[in-house]
Amino acid sequence: MVIMMEKEATESQIEHVIEFLDEKGLSVHRSTGVEHIVLGVIGDVSRIDIRDLKVLPGVSDAYRISVPYKLASREFKHSNTVIRIGDVEIGGNEVIVIAGPCSVEYKEQTMTIAEEVAKSGAKILRGGAFKPRTSPYAFQGLGEEGLKILREAADKYNLLVITEVMDKDQIELVSEYTDILQVGARNMQNFSFIRALGKAKKPVFLKRGISATIEEWLMSAEYVLSGGNKDVILCERGIRTFETYTRNTLDLTAIPVIHKLSHLPVFADPSHGTGLRNKVIPMARAAVAAGADGIMIEVHHDPVHALSDGAQSLYPNQFEELMDQIRVIAKAIGRKIADRKN
Amino acid sequence: MVIMMEKEATESQIEHVIEFLDEKGLSVHRSTGVEHIVLGVIGDVSRIDIRDLKVLPGVSDAYRISVPYKLASREFKHSNTVIRIGDVEIGGNEVIVIAGPCSVEYKEQTMTIAEEVAKSGAKILRGGAFKPRTSPYAFQGLGEEGLKILREAADKYNLLVITEVMDKDQIELVSEYTDILQVGARNMQNFSFIRALGKAKKPVFLKRGISATIEEWLMSAEYVLSGGNKDVILCERGIRTFETYTRNTLDLTAIPVIHKLSHLPVFADPSHGTGLRNKVIPMARAAVAAGADGIMIEVHHDPVHALSDGAQSLYPNQFEELMDQIRVIAKAIGRKIADRKN
Amino acid sequence: MVIMMEKEATESQIEHVIEFLDEKGLSVHRSTGVEHIVLGVIGDVSRIDIRDLKVLPGVSDAYRISVPYKLASREFKHSNTVIRIGDVEIGGNEVIVIAGPCSVEYKEQTMTIAEEVAKSGAKILRGGAFKPRTSPYAFQGLGEEGLKILREAADKYNLLVITEVMDKDQIELVSEYTDILQVGARNMQNFSFIRALGKAKKPVFLKRGISATIEEWLMSAEYVLSGGNKDVILCERGIRTFETYTRNTLDLTAIPVIHKLSHLPVFADPSHGTGLRNKVIPMARAAVAAGADGIMIEVHHDPVHALSDGAQSLYPNQFEELMDQIRVIAKAIGRKIADRKN
Amino acid sequence: MVIMMEKEATESQIEHVIEFLDEKGLSVHRSTGVEHIVLGVIGDVSRIDIRDLKVLPGVSDAYRISVPYKLASREFKHSNTVIRIGDVEIGGNEVIVIAGPCSVEYKEQTMTIAEEVAKSGAKILRGGAFKPRTSPYAFQGLGEEGLKILREAADKYNLLVITEVMDKDQIELVSEYTDILQVGARNMQNFSFIRALGKAKKPVFLKRGISATIEEWLMSAEYVLSGGNKDVILCERGIRTFETYTRNTLDLTAIPVIHKLSHLPVFADPSHGTGLRNKVIPMARAAVAAGADGIMIEVHHDPVHALSDGAQSLYPNQFEELMDQIRVIAKAIGRKIADRKN
Repeated sequence: MVIMMEKEATESQIEHVIEFLDEKGLSVHRSTGVEHIVLGVIGDVSRIDIRDLKVLPGVSDAYRISVPYKLASREFKHSNTVIRIGDVEIGGNEVIVIAGPCSVEYKEQTMTIAEEVAKSGAKILRGGAFKPRTSPYAFQGLGEEGLKILREAADKYNLLVITEVMDKDQIELVSEYTDILQVGARNMQNFSFIRALGKAKKPVFLKRGISATIEEWLMSAEYVLSGGNKDVILCERGIRTFETYTRNTLDLTAIPVIHKLSHLPVFADPSHGTGLRNKVIPMARAAVAAGADGIMIEVHHDPVHALSDGAQSLYPNQFEELMDQIRVIAKAIGRKIADRKN
Repeated sequence: MVIMMEKEATESQIEHVIEFLDEKGLSVHRSTGVEHIVLGVIGDVSRIDIRDLKVLPGVSDAYRISVPYKLASREFKHSNTVIRIGDVEIGGNEVIVIAGPCSVEYKEQTMTIAEEVAKSGAKILRGGAFKPRTSPYAFQGLGEEGLKILREAADKYNLLVITEVMDKDQIELVSEYTDILQVGARNMQNFSFIRALGKAKKPVFLKRGISATIEEWLMSAEYVLSGGNKDVILCERGIRTFETYTRNTLDLTAIPVIHKLSHLPVFADPSHGTGLRNKVIPMARAAVAAGADGIMIEVHHDPVHALSDGAQSLYPNQFEELMDQIRVIAKAIGRKIADRKN
Repeated sequence: MVIMMEKEATESQIEHVIEFLDEKGLSVHRSTGVEHIVLGVIGDVSRIDIRDLKVLPGVSDAYRISVPYKLASREFKHSNTVIRIGDVEIGGNEVIVIAGPCSVEYKEQTMTIAEEVAKSGAKILRGGAFKPRTSPYAFQGLGEEGLKILREAADKYNLLVITEVMDKDQIELVSEYTDILQVGARNMQNFSFIRALGKAKKPVFLKRGISATIEEWLMSAEYVLSGGNKDVILCERGIRTFETYTRNTLDLTAIPVIHKLSHLPVFADPSHGTGLRNKVIPMARAAVAAGADGIMIEVHHDPVHALSDGAQSLYPNQFEELMDQIRVIAKAIGRKIADRKN
Repeated sequence: MVIMMEKEATESQIEHVIEFLDEKGLSVHRSTGVEHIVLGVIGDVSRIDIRDLKVLPGVSDAYRISVPYKLASREFKHSNTVIRIGDVEIGGNEVIVIAGPCSVEYKEQTMTIAEEVAKSGAKILRGGAFKPRTSPYAFQGLGEEGLKILREAADKYNLLVITEVMDKDQIELVSEYTDILQVGARNMQNFSFIRALGKAKKPVFLKRGISATIEEWLMSAEYVLSGGNKDVILCERGIRTFETYTRNTLDLTAIPVIHKLSHLPVFADPSHGTGLRNKVIPMARAAVAAGADGIMIEVHHDPVHALSDGAQSLYPNQFEELMDQIRVIAKAIGRKIADRKN
């Protein structure tokens, strides 16, 4: 942390700042610039609210020059985190594809879709059983019945399961059926919930909040990691900007940024990131080209009648074509995607 | 809902759209413009995902021309909602001031501050017992002990209590001590939580999410109202924008907008909205001038040593001066604020 | 400027950074923190692109700890800039009201409106003769004819004139008729234009760009000031955010922020800031309460037939009522607004 | 345009709205929904300010259901615009790569870089001679001398030239040397300038403003097209959002969106879009994968000593590697990129 004093700061104001820091167990390195006294703070500043310094008399401004997360940082752990579940490696050289319906609606639906996506090379089946909906009047999911269907479909087609858990209370139940616990964007800063996920026994798939900075996103990962759960997967799914043509603005630059700052794997979800089917395909390709460790795609065999997010779900044949394209793209950057099964 | 077909849309594409709507129990009014066929949809469209229409073949665009909330709308209830708790009326002619520390830290702190703010004319005491913190390493609040202190301080100085509830599980406990349940910005779209608040027995103070549109905010109010709890107070507390000089951008225009769209009272929180003490005073005045039904202000007798948000807390004498100023401003627009007690 | 090296930075990487700075005539102060080497840069860093440092090998991050503007800063000039034109003082204790139509449309229109706003206490008449329009098909203003009408109307009712200049080529012409040169939000970073304004002989009224940070806004003021024109008035007129209910989000917090960072007067324009008549009145009051040195308000005697921005123009009687309210608000914070004339 | 009346709108209010539209030469189709009267407006509404309708008494809301641009729309012209300059086709099947330094600094620099980028397969040489800079104290470009160097370098290595024109006055001069006139993001809504470009004899490369919606961007293209210049190339270069880790947020989804709405070619500029060298490569790949018709990349043989934007410039060998990767990616989606020359 660095504190720049005002040009006219008095000696007693400087003393006051030093005392303030001293009370918190921090030492100070004082240096004199051309126009300003600058104070460098030495010690663990992670508990300091920088604004407390900014409002002290005589202080011109204060700057945090270290990141507030530790366990999530590349500096703490140099090598990529690789999460192994069964024979699937997340965060390794292979780009992992998660696919499936937005919501589990009924058994045949999920079975049909699972078969299709498995054939095209997906490794993990998605599907919501508990649905967070903006409107209290919309379809809210099948609950545990949905979890059972999802597990059965995944097992039949040799897929892993990922599904959203909305609440602390649901962690145990959902963990019985799923391989990965998905945390929705709106829950990224639900702190009592993400703290509880630190004690969960399954990997956590942490979607970025629609207005979360990259630093806040990594701080939420830190909540999970500091609770003892080392298996966190990040997922970019679009941020809110002034542009409203698409539902959100998919921030693909976050992918190389996360790879620099953190050792955790990072996915992209172009289905939620764009909200419209014909934008999903180009953005899925772009995500792989940008270096994503995986993508999450909504697929539905009959999207016109889907109970949620039909508009952003691909038809199975579109998904198959997309898989063929991204297989080439992955190769272009030295990575691979599972082959089609026939 | 209005659907504009593409110039070249075929008759069979138009038929297909009409069928799609018919399946959902909606009727269609077809009209022919200069260049485009336009379909007007008649019936309850609240369950329709507008994107499902946008992706149908031959559709150029689709527009929702009604608001998705009902109970929260001014159209549903014309007169302002006035919430009476003891002798305090929220949403009436009086502008209500909520004040107190960010966190309840220890008994004397809360007592001292409660006495000060009551003297200056505040009607409601705020103070956090359960604190949502961006960092897992920061102070997380005193819990139930904090609630007890808060209640005792409020009772002694004839104030009401407002405090944050972070979680479905805490509603019952917190309701024992508080008069109003505060929902933090990050929980505004925690749907299982706000659904549960619809069954709570206390008024809900619903802060706007930092990236929530006004419509989403009113949809969250709708969750509470539709559960049977009619007492919802909205609170603007700053939105996230590209400008980072202040923590958030306080969107005061939301106040007259809410007053047009909804019958619910709307407050402003300039402490969180700006994050810096010397910006709180002008923005608190501005909120009253803009027509807020109340304001929420953080006050601390020793902000330098506050355990959280000291930088945005006013000193008691600053708070007193602010109260004097906003009393005049309220009068200028035909409203009132409680007198100072001596 | 402060540079934090990576934990594992080698001695030769550190040397390389120091050499890089040395080449630019800057000296370096090296200090050793708990985990990181930190380099403090001493000298004039205003020409350094901070990203050049961020990409050097071994650098973890770099921080600019001084503001890039000088002449516009409060540190450079402590006392408020007060601009005197005739008997009007801008930036002094009086809150100055600018009012008038969006566009000059025809002589009687401007005369009628000038008379009304002068009577209510406005000091400066606004009106566009050259109009920047989003659509090439919209009304583009009367040009010089409009300037003549505006001058005549202002002179008759003892008002000053402000009008927009869109282009370097127009500065001379517009300066013949106006007292203040208004720069529109979209031109705030039209650098060849604002550089030319540094040589203009009239004060410059610099609207904030809709996506300009406060720092960028002050940098644009710096362009004018560094050209030799000391008379710059800033004007907040709404920024672009995700919220689309109103045209823009009026960032009133910018007012106290500018007052802290700069000596220049700052106005607010709630007409463009909200875009809707019934939001203009509360936000104009809020601007005065927040400490604005003046406000700019669009007024039209027949807004239904206005050629531009009728929807955000007040009727003369609304303007009169607003003036009565803000006179009281100004007094509450120790300032004044000119009385009504009868 | 569709107008929804309030539930309680009176017959005389409805009449008033109809009259208002009638005065403007528009006819109205009235239909009665379950709860609201809805008015459909028939005729050319491009000159109507929708807010004028929103503020009429009895109007609940008004919606524009057609796009305000015409010549730029896909509906107006179905087939892609292909611009041929020499043997280069922009907007055709080939993905065109523009590369070169940020600024032309001196002859050898530009020659060296031109040779390198030509060898790797670039078709167009970029380089700034007139530089718009945020700071009045920064390097402002070589002016006409820079244009000469650029032209000479391009001719020697069989490249086309693109360079920025900052001002109406410069159009003629710059047109003597360049093949394509580049308009910077900050000038996208400098209306007197872009109107003048409608009369220019060279294609216009129109960068998206950092806070411009896609609709506003197409409206600016409309200014050029309506002036008679049919050759407009759009370029996404990052928008301003709350995320500040990167300079801007590159909105790659704009690429498929533009392809749907318009017939104009669309490029991406990942150098300005990210601002940091190691983010340029993945985002350039992503742009091609998303379907861009071309990319613009800053390359410098000695970026550490570049006079501007060194931090976002690729080394020639990085550029070469990037070209190899995007050649494969282009093929994966059925497009091509020029081969490397040896």
